[in-house]
Amino acid sequence: MSEKGKYTTIHYQQYLGLDKLLSTQVLRSEELGDPAHEEMLFIITHQVYELWFKQIIHELQSVIAMFSEERLDESNLGNAIARLNRVERVLQLLIDQIGVMETMTPLDFLDFREYLFPASGFQSVQFRMVESLLGLPEVNRMTYHNTKYSSVFPEDQQKMLTQIYENGTLFDWVNKWLERTPFLRLEGFDFLDKYKEAVKKMLEKESRAIMASDYLTNKEKEKRLEMVGGTDSYFKSILSREHYDDLVKDGKKRMSYDATLAALFINLYRDEPILQLPFQLLTNLIDIDDLMTTWRSRHAQMVLRMLGNKVGTGGSSGHEYLAETAKKHRIFTDFHSISTLLISRSELPKLPPEIKKKLSYYFTQT
Amino acid sequence: MSEKGKYTTIHYQQYLGLDKLLSTQVLRSEELGDPAHEEMLFIITHQVYELWFKQIIHELQSVIAMFSEERLDESNLGNAIARLNRVERVLQLLIDQIGVMETMTPLDFLDFREYLFPASGFQSVQFRMVESLLGLPEVNRMTYHNTKYSSVFPEDQQKMLTQIYENGTLFDWVNKWLERTPFLRLEGFDFLDKYKEAVKKMLEKESRAIMASDYLTNKEKEKRLEMVGGTDSYFKSILSREHYDDLVKDGKKRMSYDATLAALFINLYRDEPILQLPFQLLTNLIDIDDLMTTWRSRHAQMVLRMLGNKVGTGGSSGHEYLAETAKKHRIFTDFHSISTLLISRSELPKLPPEIKKKLSYYFTQT
Amino acid sequence: MSEKGKYTTIHYQQYLGLDKLLSTQVLRSEELGDPAHEEMLFIITHQVYELWFKQIIHELQSVIAMFSEERLDESNLGNAIARLNRVERVLQLLIDQIGVMETMTPLDFLDFREYLFPASGFQSVQFRMVESLLGLPEVNRMTYHNTKYSSVFPEDQQKMLTQIYENGTLFDWVNKWLERTPFLRLEGFDFLDKYKEAVKKMLEKESRAIMASDYLTNKEKEKRLEMVGGTDSYFKSILSREHYDDLVKDGKKRMSYDATLAALFINLYRDEPILQLPFQLLTNLIDIDDLMTTWRSRHAQMVLRMLGNKVGTGGSSGHEYLAETAKKHRIFTDFHSISTLLISRSELPKLPPEIKKKLSYYFTQT
Amino acid sequence: MSEKGKYTTIHYQQYLGLDKLLSTQVLRSEELGDPAHEEMLFIITHQVYELWFKQIIHELQSVIAMFSEERLDESNLGNAIARLNRVERVLQLLIDQIGVMETMTPLDFLDFREYLFPASGFQSVQFRMVESLLGLPEVNRMTYHNTKYSSVFPEDQQKMLTQIYENGTLFDWVNKWLERTPFLRLEGFDFLDKYKEAVKKMLEKESRAIMASDYLTNKEKEKRLEMVGGTDSYFKSILSREHYDDLVKDGKKRMSYDATLAALFINLYRDEPILQLPFQLLTNLIDIDDLMTTWRSRHAQMVLRMLGNKVGTGGSSGHEYLAETAKKHRIFTDFHSISTLLISRSELPKLPPEIKKKLSYYFTQT
Repeated sequence: MSEKGKYTTIHYQQYLGLDKLLSTQVLRSEELGDPAHEEMLFIITHQVYELWFKQIIHELQSVIAMFSEERLDESNLGNAIARLNRVERVLQLLIDQIGVMETMTPLDFLDFREYLFPASGFQSVQFRMVESLLGLPEVNRMTYHNTKYSSVFPEDQQKMLTQIYENGTLFDWVNKWLERTPFLRLEGFDFLDKYKEAVKKMLEKESRAIMASDYLTNKEKEKRLEMVGGTDSYFKSILSREHYDDLVKDGKKRMSYDATLAALFINLYRDEPILQLPFQLLTNLIDIDDLMTTWRSRHAQMVLRMLGNKVGTGGSSGHEYLAETAKKHRIFTDFHSISTLLISRSELPKLPPEIKKKLSYYFTQT
Repeated sequence: MSEKGKYTTIHYQQYLGLDKLLSTQVLRSEELGDPAHEEMLFIITHQVYELWFKQIIHELQSVIAMFSEERLDESNLGNAIARLNRVERVLQLLIDQIGVMETMTPLDFLDFREYLFPASGFQSVQFRMVESLLGLPEVNRMTYHNTKYSSVFPEDQQKMLTQIYENGTLFDWVNKWLERTPFLRLEGFDFLDKYKEAVKKMLEKESRAIMASDYLTNKEKEKRLEMVGGTDSYFKSILSREHYDDLVKDGKKRMSYDATLAALFINLYRDEPILQLPFQLLTNLIDIDDLMTTWRSRHAQMVLRMLGNKVGTGGSSGHEYLAETAKKHRIFTDFHSISTLLISRSELPKLPPEIKKKLSYYFTQT
Repeated sequence: MSEKGKYTTIHYQQYLGLDKLLSTQVLRSEELGDPAHEEMLFIITHQVYELWFKQIIHELQSVIAMFSEERLDESNLGNAIARLNRVERVLQLLIDQIGVMETMTPLDFLDFREYLFPASGFQSVQFRMVESLLGLPEVNRMTYHNTKYSSVFPEDQQKMLTQIYENGTLFDWVNKWLERTPFLRLEGFDFLDKYKEAVKKMLEKESRAIMASDYLTNKEKEKRLEMVGGTDSYFKSILSREHYDDLVKDGKKRMSYDATLAALFINLYRDEPILQLPFQLLTNLIDIDDLMTTWRSRHAQMVLRMLGNKVGTGGSSGHEYLAETAKKHRIFTDFHSISTLLISRSELPKLPPEIKKKLSYYFTQT
Repeated sequence: MSEKGKYTTIHYQQYLGLDKLLSTQVLRSEELGDPAHEEMLFIITHQVYELWFKQIIHELQSVIAMFSEERLDESNLGNAIARLNRVERVLQLLIDQIGVMETMTPLDFLDFREYLFPASGFQSVQFRMVESLLGLPEVNRMTYHNTKYSSVFPEDQQKMLTQIYENGTLFDWVNKWLERTPFLRLEGFDFLDKYKEAVKKMLEKESRAIMASDYLTNKEKEKRLEMVGGTDSYFKSILSREHYDDLVKDGKKRMSYDATLAALFINLYRDEPILQLPFQLLTNLIDIDDLMTTWRSRHAQMVLRMLGNKVGTGGSSGHEYLAETAKKHRIFTDFHSISTLLISRSELPKLPPEIKKKLSYYFTQT
């Protein structure tokens, strides 16, 4: 830009496009000659949602761009985390905003509801983009009245949605980034072997302690030993590549075996300098998933309160459908499941000094 | 009190019992010789929950006391609403507080988790009291590992819990209060008759409009007419005492037929002075139910994040159990369902002047 | 509307004007050839503010319309309160939203800040409208760099702002509504006389109790008696019309003497049926004032964090100016001050039965 | 601990000390024979505050312990940040909790207020500890009725408070940690020189652009050039050690010159791996300061609403005093001020490759 260029001045009103922005609240009840006070809230609430969706899309696309590089630029990791933190804060606003919508009573909604037919939040392509960018698999997506979700969108929007999956979602790229982690195969430290050993030792110690306890009754001992046995089988099955790959084939896991081990490693040794930001990032994904779920549940509640057992605008079955998506449209549960594999710090294989050095800052090692 | 009495002075520390209060954080990890920093958060978070539960119980008991009088003192209605509003705000805090607990990582939890066996939030008698005071029916309560929930409590606590049901829950007393509503049978205005008529007229008009539409295809008309038919059947079935009572017998409804009609009347004519506070109160009950549900969902999420697929402290199956309670431990859904019966203001039977007068303030009518 | 009319159908995208709405995010940094990722957040956050301002204006105008009728329609009071409750929830969102803006770091802001010159939030006419509709007096409004606030707006906007004051603000209309309250002069009950008497009795009792106390030292007694004396003078001065009117002339009070007494009456006897909603409404005004103040404080904090001691876009002195408005742009402090005049329930003059009857519902008195 | 030890079992009720905890709500109004429903809320709210204060103290002490080591263990930085994040979330709860307290009306408070004399939140030693641990200097602390704050505490508590300052506050230790930063004096890169140069170049470019602008009037150019001049002087004065040290002597700055430069460096080059966590930590301190300020403002508002112009329990002047502390009891404003010194990324001196290498991870550089 020329140095001069920037000295064109601009006014707040013009900068934010307020003339346009504030002319988009067209009350349909008014147009149809029967103005309803509460329709303004309905429109503005939805418009605010759409603005925030645009913001979320902006952030997710930028984070995906970082992760889709052959090698993630280290100096970007902080930014990626900051942007996902922002997405979380926006999602929290979107949840809180449901409370604003709920200040409209069911009777008020009836004053204009019929004029909206068949418009429905189901037709928000931006919300669908958010889900897709995060990585909700098309196959998991619930159909609604046996209509495929995508068919509600015009062709160009459908293309755009398909493109998101072709470019790779956030889930895909994080999975690949984890798979590339070199720390699992460092010279002089075979993480998987050491970990299996530690798990075995821990469970044996646990069993011995149960047997030796003076406080437990025999029946309690039995029950506790059974639990230890269950834990043992669980660890064995997950830590075996063959078995894990079967879970993936059966659709019970989406994260790959290698990515799972990497995520486990990061969770266990998160205090090593090079792992602190990756650990934050994995936490972001769990947070975002939980926030999306809470939003869906709250949305389902609002629809129940507003419509009772009636069908939603657009004919959607409303409450039940939305409540189901809260259960089934989850994206990062494999990251939640890592918790099942953790063992306590006191049982953890110690990292050898040369490994710790590698995971540290250059400055402090020279 | 003697006038003198109040001039004994008191200090902040003594007034709040801080010596006692701040000595109850006994870290078990420390007692067992293996101090874990994060256990403090675990204890304090739970203690804050218990303090707020005590507050909620205090408010619910006082509101139940008001409603269990033969005739609700009008001057109490504002207080009842204010106290339920307070309960809502406390519940919102309890939901937000889960985010504080989630700052503890799963790995941190492992540092002291085993020392807690078999303590479990499941053993909180105050939480159970909150559920019972609100009116969660014992029969709806999920069993856990086939153990009846109540059996985890010592006998005196069980007695106290039984007593709550014997005294009548908030649900029970509100139901009775609604049943007593005199407005449904006012001389010169038979609400039920008028309402059935209005529904009929509305549906006929709807059908005619669909038939006459130039915009709808024949297929769309058919689908729309079918929906109108469904609505018709629904109204008929609910507005018939016989059919409604069958729903109650089958456990599909808990609110009585008369109470339902009263709640419907209040929702429809909420702007009449005498109905404005009752309308607020009904909204409170829906809000509280939704907040409890959100708390349960968030709690379930937290447990998933913390334990993955592991069983909780106390051996509870954790995530799945809690997620199920969010669906099944609902108390006031019959109040949500009133929405299904609403018709729009323009279709509503007008109240005759003498009825409006009765529903108004004495001052403005004389 | 013709019955047919409503069967024109509409799509979500079209209903919300999404094509227009989502095309108003024009990054100036991009236009000037130097795209800054974070400008999107800056634009969208401000646009969301403007959408919510529009909602708040919509609600305030409707409430003012209700109160500016010669006699407030009783059936509107519930609606007025519901709409002010909604304004509160929106304001809470606006406060929380500052946290989203703060996810942008000061360094990020520098990437595009210079391109915005001299646009400034100061130029938001809608925010100014919110302040004016609530009743911020023009004379109290802080000038900024000696520029009158209003001069930043084009003529048509200035006219609109002037019009708001000419039509009367929410403060004005509530003040008038309170002045009309008939309850202060009811036959057989002179509130002011009775109240002065009760205050006197209370203070005498207080003094006696202090003198008689065995627990207080002489010095403490003296100090306490002095406080009682101060309270006495305060009550006398406020409860005298002459003195009160002087405070109004000096700009120390804005609410009129009669309105103040009415507000006092409502606060004291809020449990009488006819006063319960008025009491809620007065609380709404205090809540809204506090939320506006919190928003201003948080805004000031954000500017400090973002710019340090630099001047804001548009050349505003930023932090200090905003922090000052939090102190000086208060609107309903006279309603906060009512608390100073309250005496405890046990000292309160009892309402005679015929007065209580008048304040009750017609139905329950006949 | 012996392996057996941990198999002593524990019950929820016993673990949380509930018998004790739930017996500390002693309503003074009840003791004095005049039970007030609302006193329960008053007690419980304050007790919850005290529990959370204990949690905050627990976290601050642990973070101070990390920073007071001769060299901060890198693997602790993530934990320090996590704990300060937690403190932020707790503070947010404490702010939201004020809304719960505000559900008590001023009239309700009068039912028991006189019984509390002279207890006051002013006597909370834990709150004072929080302020002191963060680093509020004793000299900045406002006196109240000319009473030194500390004199309200018994001797042992005063000793404990003094000890906090002697051990060093969070402010002190972070200041020292910043002073030790080696990055300002790295071989081949004199940050301060380069930075002064960049500032000079930026301001010259700015002046040229203003002069050359076709859009600005002469008067506007003059005003803009004047602003550039002001910025120049500001930078010069802060970036000079002598002048800066004078500011410290005059009590206008508390952070040392070296620490300020280090904080500036971290803010500017925060994307370098070794600086990402330090940048997060500096942001935490700003966040905590802002949250404390918001809490103080909200607290002041609540007191105004509750007492109007009356003095608080304990005789504190209430609203005004608290509002003043919101302005004067700030701790980390020097960290906010760093923003004033930032220049935009495009003007920033590039780090030479060997410096970038040093600021990176060992693993990625070998």
